[in-house]
Amino acid sequence: MANFPKRIEIKEEGPREGFQIEKNPIPTARKIEFIDALSETGLKTIQTVSFVNPKVVPNMADAEDVVAGFTAKPGVTYTGLFLNDQGMARALATKKLTVKGSISLCASEAFLKRNQNRTLDQQLAAQHESIERYKKNNIKIESAGISAAFGCNFEGDVKVDRIMSMAVTIFEVAAEHDVTIKHFALMDTMAWATPDRIKRVVGALQDKYPHIQYGLHLHDTRGMGIANAYAGLEMGIAHYDACVAGLGGCPFAGHAGAAGNVCTEDLVFMAHEMGIETGLDLERLVECAKMAEDIVGHPLAGSVMTGGSLQRLREKVAA
Amino acid sequence: MANFPKRIEIKEEGPREGFQIEKNPIPTARKIEFIDALSETGLKTIQTVSFVNPKVVPNMADAEDVVAGFTAKPGVTYTGLFLNDQGMARALATKKLTVKGSISLCASEAFLKRNQNRTLDQQLAAQHESIERYKKNNIKIESAGISAAFGCNFEGDVKVDRIMSMAVTIFEVAAEHDVTIKHFALMDTMAWATPDRIKRVVGALQDKYPHIQYGLHLHDTRGMGIANAYAGLEMGIAHYDACVAGLGGCPFAGHAGAAGNVCTEDLVFMAHEMGIETGLDLERLVECAKMAEDIVGHPLAGSVMTGGSLQRLREKVAA
Repeated sequence: MANFPKRIEIKEEGPREGFQIEKNPIPTARKIEFIDALSETGLKTIQTVSFVNPKVVPNMADAEDVVAGFTAKPGVTYTGLFLNDQGMARALATKKLTVKGSISLCASEAFLKRNQNRTLDQQLAAQHESIERYKKNNIKIESAGISAAFGCNFEGDVKVDRIMSMAVTIFEVAAEHDVTIKHFALMDTMAWATPDRIKRVVGALQDKYPHIQYGLHLHDTRGMGIANAYAGLEMGIAHYDACVAGLGGCPFAGHAGAAGNVCTEDLVFMAHEMGIETGLDLERLVECAKMAEDIVGHPLAGSVMTGGSLQRLREKVAA
Repeated sequence: MANFPKRIEIKEEGPREGFQIEKNPIPTARKIEFIDALSETGLKTIQTVSFVNPKVVPNMADAEDVVAGFTAKPGVTYTGLFLNDQGMARALATKKLTVKGSISLCASEAFLKRNQNRTLDQQLAAQHESIERYKKNNIKIESAGISAAFGCNFEGDVKVDRIMSMAVTIFEVAAEHDVTIKHFALMDTMAWATPDRIKRVVGALQDKYPHIQYGLHLHDTRGMGIANAYAGLEMGIAHYDACVAGLGGCPFAGHAGAAGNVCTEDLVFMAHEMGIETGLDLERLVECAKMAEDIVGHPLAGSVMTGGSLQRLREKVAA
């Protein structure tokens, strides 16, 4: 059988992924309430906000206020997304968020152009600059990632070879700066992955770089999120980004149906049913999912939040 | 890698599973329109109606009119669900539906009691009677199935051992009546399955009865539908029941969140992306899914109908 991990770590991105895509303004207080509720679920890492241009992402204009407002629970790491120097400076200025460095490449130049207005070469050059900045600010760099790793709405399929050559580049850049990469994330930014693609790409990377911890950032636009996560579990992957209630989507992804990260509580449900530990309280996550639906004011895609966990049914049957 | 089938057969159950659960009456003409549209997608088997008590399932009261109304496309098999003698007589009386016999057991007595008001022993006895009736009516019996095969909201988990002993019973009953079972369906009636459970149950059955064609009937109540189907593909399973747009749910399953069969077009999308043939036109299925949403008058759970297929994006990129 498969090489399932004994335990997985889920990085919750709901507050960032989920709220950045909403058109209606979400009150700062409700964002804070949501992050505080997530802090009580057992999550060890919560991405709370993104430090991006408020003209492009109006719902992140209050990022500093959100960060100032939530109650940091000991043992939980709170992060913020940033894409450039200015964003990093804002994250550091909060003095509350954990700022980690990473080497990030995008497998699609067309998407990069739309999302960050950069060419692949410019992005590579920017990585060298970022690393220097991280070092100057004593920020640890242990992570790397490739976005649009399985395909792109503007460029089409991404071949395994391309990912492999980008990985080579990433490890070369890291070596050049005396950086040791421990975590390597594959981001299915535009939901092109299917389970067998996951296995092929991950398998090729694991073959070449066996001592790296791989992670998956999955979207559910075409309903493959949980199946892709399952393929990841079969490959022994222990790190997943996810969003409570399936919140999220990328405002740059170019079509209206681009909604939804893989759903945290559905992934936790699957893991627990398979005997894989998460350290998370499924029922509390379901409560957070219902809160998220209330906050955004429209139905969200999560299934267990509606269908209910099996543990509850087992307890009812046993009673 | 896995033992993927080269081609899968999908039995569409949307018109039956989907409409039986709806509270608002659905006009007969729209049911007919939907079946006629499904007939143009390449589907080879469409379950059109169920012949059940109209007091319990009001939306199936017009079953005979629906069957009389649709245009049978050559090469497509149209079926109707029945649970008893009376239902079978109604199906036969249409002279338009293909009536096939099967030996069916339910893994949960508590569910059986609620769904058909029978004990397990009564159900077993009924199988003998059914087989005799099938034979009298020259109806082929090549299929068997176990419902609630992975768990039950009223009894809890179903162990692999139980499925194995039920399979033994089924093959004994078949042998007693000189019936040869070719197809064996596992029905996750109340959405208790996870991918590893699918693999364990299917693996045990394949080990003991390697020459049988296995099939899966999956529900998506807890978001596991596509992941479970993927696990089925890895086990070489080539037969799936599915519903366009994720229509469906079981009115007896005991809680409001029990919605949705695995979604036909999402499953077809995954299969095609993996290079597995289905013989189906994905874009036409998406049109049927949109029609289904229009007919029931509320959003349905399918993802590809909203997110769009990748083939369309590939064509756009290539253009």
